[in-house]
Amino acid sequence: MPADYQIHELGSVTLQGGATIRDCKLAYKTYGTLSPAKDNVIVYPTWYSGQHYENEWLVGSGMALDPARWFIIIPNMLGNGLSSSPSNTPEPYNGPRFPNVTACDNVRVQHRLVTEKFGIEKIRLVTGWSMGALQTFHWGALYPDMVEKIAPFCGSAKCSRHNFVFLEGVKAALTADAAFAGGWYATKPAIGLRAMARVYAGWGFSQAFYREELDLKTLVYSSLEDFLVAFWEGFFLPKDANNLLTMLWTWQHGDISDNTLYNGDFKRALGAIKARAYVMPGQTDLYFPPEDSQFEVAHMPNAELIPVPSIWGHFAGGPGTNPTDVAFLDAKLKQLLAE
Amino acid sequence: MPADYQIHELGSVTLQGGATIRDCKLAYKTYGTLSPAKDNVIVYPTWYSGQHYENEWLVGSGMALDPARWFIIIPNMLGNGLSSSPSNTPEPYNGPRFPNVTACDNVRVQHRLVTEKFGIEKIRLVTGWSMGALQTFHWGALYPDMVEKIAPFCGSAKCSRHNFVFLEGVKAALTADAAFAGGWYATKPAIGLRAMARVYAGWGFSQAFYREELDLKTLVYSSLEDFLVAFWEGFFLPKDANNLLTMLWTWQHGDISDNTLYNGDFKRALGAIKARAYVMPGQTDLYFPPEDSQFEVAHMPNAELIPVPSIWGHFAGGPGTNPTDVAFLDAKLKQLLAE
Repeated sequence: MPADYQIHELGSVTLQGGATIRDCKLAYKTYGTLSPAKDNVIVYPTWYSGQHYENEWLVGSGMALDPARWFIIIPNMLGNGLSSSPSNTPEPYNGPRFPNVTACDNVRVQHRLVTEKFGIEKIRLVTGWSMGALQTFHWGALYPDMVEKIAPFCGSAKCSRHNFVFLEGVKAALTADAAFAGGWYATKPAIGLRAMARVYAGWGFSQAFYREELDLKTLVYSSLEDFLVAFWEGFFLPKDANNLLTMLWTWQHGDISDNTLYNGDFKRALGAIKARAYVMPGQTDLYFPPEDSQFEVAHMPNAELIPVPSIWGHFAGGPGTNPTDVAFLDAKLKQLLAE
Repeated sequence: MPADYQIHELGSVTLQGGATIRDCKLAYKTYGTLSPAKDNVIVYPTWYSGQHYENEWLVGSGMALDPARWFIIIPNMLGNGLSSSPSNTPEPYNGPRFPNVTACDNVRVQHRLVTEKFGIEKIRLVTGWSMGALQTFHWGALYPDMVEKIAPFCGSAKCSRHNFVFLEGVKAALTADAAFAGGWYATKPAIGLRAMARVYAGWGFSQAFYREELDLKTLVYSSLEDFLVAFWEGFFLPKDANNLLTMLWTWQHGDISDNTLYNGDFKRALGAIKARAYVMPGQTDLYFPPEDSQFEVAHMPNAELIPVPSIWGHFAGGPGTNPTDVAFLDAKLKQLLAE
């Protein structure tokens, strides 16, 4: 089967941390046609461990992100296994030697794709779920004159301390497996991946989701244990451990102000986002609670807080798991694009 | 140093699961003097991994649990390292062969202590934090004519599905360490204990606790990483892994109705609790959310829901970590005892 995505060859990319990825590759897929005026562009970055096709639930005919109307670019995050990652980078920067990548690094190479490859000067909308939201905020802060609208959902402009701690637990579970071997595993650390999945399970969905047994009643797993094995362990087992840790580092160190533009002044970075913004936290998201979004919106000049009324926790935002939430998000995106 | 606790020799104890612990030991400590009429008794069970002395923050002169007025019995949970546990039981029921113990098993042996050893017929109050609350609910449901008042705080009468999943993550992190060796470790599985600690860290305190940096400002750790190492890893590293897993099983399978009295009818078991009850969830507890307590109170004939107004998450309830919450709980216990 031929790959359903393109590669933008970036050459040597020097990261914020000082390392250089040589022959750096940005995998992406586009949907729809770029208008002659290049004024119909939507950028839609991926989430933690997700690849472009796992973003497609929000793209479709009749939806806000309709390829008949918009030119939609889904760039794969560095570390996600398709763009340059621990799993596909040759020695000496392979595996656990793959350098730390920031969300800022990601958005800068995405900006290169958009400008170098397509000659685009204006972006109508950037949107994304979770770490996709983190990149969305970065687009707004790093390229305020280029981005007209942003719609980050179930994510934040800066990793909160609690979110950081949650991820420490995920990381510790994965790396507790001796087979992980400091990242030099010959066969995948399956025990660690399964442990990580079980840790994640309590965070991904809300208390109310489990209370209402939506794992059984809506997602139709046969038991709670079946949900933990088939959904959660099944989700992480196929993924490369070093890739997961690279993206986890990106997440933990996400901060729109951690760059020479803003020098760590988070409020100033938020204030610099000119884009009209719908910030949409999940009402019951356990690691991106609405309170954090509230703070962000309060410091953005043109933003609105729109919580997603859902008991699906973080999965209120994706990846298309709950049709009701998808309909809510889609309607809000339509509204934002129509403003 | 002589032990500061007593042992009640239980002989052979057959558990709900069918196993028998021979020469079963219940470690306990008492505070104050049993009145001649034996009408001043308070039972105060321990929490997950806690031992009697770690309950003492709620006992003291001038407090609700004043030894000058009350005869307070703190029984150590089976599996906690002082009562019969994987770590102190001789072969063949030692280590990972130690049998599964339910909260019902625990409260039944505590009832034996109270009646056999002290000849007590009425208990004025049972109270406890977390798994101590679980045992408190069990006291109310198993001995409704014996227990006058109960005050379970930051705990539940039945382990919720979400709480179960949170504990699956904790367990998976601990057992992912190859040194755990199915429980047959020669030296302690330190990597697993540290991983478990990091997983727990995100659950124990609330998002708001971390947002407000109370780990630094109130608990005075020097950095977030210092809090994770010194507080959390330091908390779990001294504990025996099999003991932790025994108590974790007890927690996961806690259910006041899972016995021949109620045959799994949870609402009926709640309805059978005659005791006047103050049910006190932590307002921001991530694994015992107030909604679960609300359900319980709605099905108890004589109960009141009193959320603890705190951003300390589960630690609103103990173990004496936040003086403001201690004062709140103490005041409510005074009020309940005075009713």
